[in-house]
Amino acid sequence: MPLPLARCAIHTMTTKPWSLAQAAEAYAHAGVGGITVWRQHLPAGGAAEAGRIVRAAGLGVAAYCRGGFFPAADAGKRQAALDDNRRCIDEAAAVGAPQVVLVCGAVPGMPLAEARAQIRDGLAAVLDHACSAGIRLAIEPLHPLYAADRSAVSTMAQARRIAESFTRELPDPLGRFGAAGRRAVGIACDVYHVWWDDTLAEEITLAGRLGLLHGFHVCDWKAEQASMLNDRGLMGEGCIDVAGIRRQVEAAGFTGYAEVEVFSDRHWARDQQQWLGDIVRAWERV
Amino acid sequence: MPLPLARCAIHTMTTKPWSLAQAAEAYAHAGVGGITVWRQHLPAGGAAEAGRIVRAAGLGVAAYCRGGFFPAADAGKRQAALDDNRRCIDEAAAVGAPQVVLVCGAVPGMPLAEARAQIRDGLAAVLDHACSAGIRLAIEPLHPLYAADRSAVSTMAQARRIAESFTRELPDPLGRFGAAGRRAVGIACDVYHVWWDDTLAEEITLAGRLGLLHGFHVCDWKAEQASMLNDRGLMGEGCIDVAGIRRQVEAAGFTGYAEVEVFSDRHWARDQQQWLGDIVRAWERV
Repeated sequence: MPLPLARCAIHTMTTKPWSLAQAAEAYAHAGVGGITVWRQHLPAGGAAEAGRIVRAAGLGVAAYCRGGFFPAADAGKRQAALDDNRRCIDEAAAVGAPQVVLVCGAVPGMPLAEARAQIRDGLAAVLDHACSAGIRLAIEPLHPLYAADRSAVSTMAQARRIAESFTRELPDPLGRFGAAGRRAVGIACDVYHVWWDDTLAEEITLAGRLGLLHGFHVCDWKAEQASMLNDRGLMGEGCIDVAGIRRQVEAAGFTGYAEVEVFSDRHWARDQQQWLGDIVRAWERV
Repeated sequence: MPLPLARCAIHTMTTKPWSLAQAAEAYAHAGVGGITVWRQHLPAGGAAEAGRIVRAAGLGVAAYCRGGFFPAADAGKRQAALDDNRRCIDEAAAVGAPQVVLVCGAVPGMPLAEARAQIRDGLAAVLDHACSAGIRLAIEPLHPLYAADRSAVSTMAQARRIAESFTRELPDPLGRFGAAGRRAVGIACDVYHVWWDDTLAEEITLAGRLGLLHGFHVCDWKAEQASMLNDRGLMGEGCIDVAGIRRQVEAAGFTGYAEVEVFSDRHWARDQQQWLGDIVRAWERV
C-alpha cells in the first residue's frame, strides 16, 4: 500500500530548473505534502522569504540541504566550512526546516581516517549552534562511490556510530520532531546510497530504536548510469527494492516524510510539470 | 619499504592487449615473480598449455580469474553457471593456480537477498569439486558500485561471513597455500573495492586470523573516472593508501603475492612494454 502523498516531500533539486516559488506551487497543486529546500534554490529574499513561500503553499518542510563538507586541507578552509555550516543552520531555521542534511565531505588524497577525524571535529564545533537554533543535523552516508571526494561516511553503521557518539537532545516544545526523535545528530537514509548493504535492515532497525532515523530519501539505482552524479532513476526505474526498504523504515518507527531526491540530467531536460506527474505516479505505484 | 618484485604478480588483464605468452615473457623479464591468468588469455592449447607457458617463464601463479556469477533468473542458467565454475576450477588446476577468484554475481532486478542465497547455494554446489581439485575459492567483494549487476557481495565483512560458513579445508601436501591457509573458501581483498570501508583494518585482521585471506589485489581509485569499469588507476595515481593497506595485510600474516590488477582503457591503449615499466616503477615507489 503506498503512503499518502501527504507523506511525500520533494527535493527542489529533483526539479532543478524550477525556482522555489514554481516548485512549491506545483508540488502543492499536485497534492504533495512537503518540500526539502536546497540552498541553490533560495530566492533573492533569502531564507526568510523561502519560508514564506513554502508556508504560503501549505507545504511542510522535511529538511534543508545541505551542510557538511567539513574536511579541508588547511585550517582556514576548515574554519570557513564551520562558518558556512552555521549559516546553513540559521537558514534552515528561517526556512522552517527541522534539520539540515549533511554531506560530510572528503578530500582526494587526504587519508580517510584524517577526513573522518575532521568530520567528527566539525560536527562537535557546530553542535551548539544547531542546538540553539533547534535544528537537527542529519548525517547522510553517501555511496562508497563518493568516498574520495564527497563523503568519508559511507554506511549506515558508520553514520550510526558517529551519531551515537553525540548524545545531545534538542528541546521540542512544538513537537516538531515526532517519532524520529530529538537527538541533535542523526541519520538521513537515502536508498541510493545504502541499498547494496547487507546490514541495511538491521541498521535501519537499530537507528530507529536509538532515535537516530531523521530522514528517508528515495530514488532508484540504474544498473547502467551515464554519469556517476546525475543519472539517478525515479523509483521503479532501477533495481532498488524501494517499497521493501520503506517498510523497514516504517517498522523502525519512522513517521516523517519520504523525500524524493532524484538528480538526473535526463529528467531535468524534460518539461518539469510532466516530470512531476511521473514522480507522483511512481510514488503511487512504489 | 617496498616488497620485492618477487612478491608481485600481474593480472594478464592488466596488459590486456598481450597474449599470455607475451605477458609471461615480459613479466619474467622485468623481474616480476608471479602472474594471475585470466580465462580470456588462455592460449589455443588451453589451460594445460597456459601452465607450460607460465612455468617455462619461471613465474608463480597467484590465481586464476575468474569464476562466480552464480545468480541467474532460471534454473537452467544457474546450472550452466555451476558447470562453468567446475570447468574454471579444472582450468585453474591445469594452469597451476592455487585458487580461483570469484566475482559472485548479481542480476539487475533480482532482490539482493535472493542473489545472496543463490551465491551461497552456488558455492556449496561447487565446493566438492574445488576440494577434489585442490583449488581454493577466493570471494572477491566488489565495490558497491557493482552491486546491481556484478556482485551482491560488497564488503570484507560480508565475504568473511560467507567464507566463515564454509569450514572445509583443503589437503596441502606440497605446502602451496602457505600462511594464507587451507580454508577452501576465503577472500580476495582488492583495494579498489574495499578502500572506503571504515571497518577495513579490523576485517583484514580478522580475515587473517581466521585463515581466510587468500588474495590481495592492488591498483588505485581516481576521484574522477571516465568509466565505471575501465578507468582504474595505477598505484599512486589515485587516493587509496595502498602502502598502508598493504602493511595491514602483511600484519595479518599474509605472505602471498600482491596482485596488480588495473583495468584501464587509457593504459591498454599505450605501448604495453612502457606500461609494464610504469607498473614496476609504481610497485617500487608504493
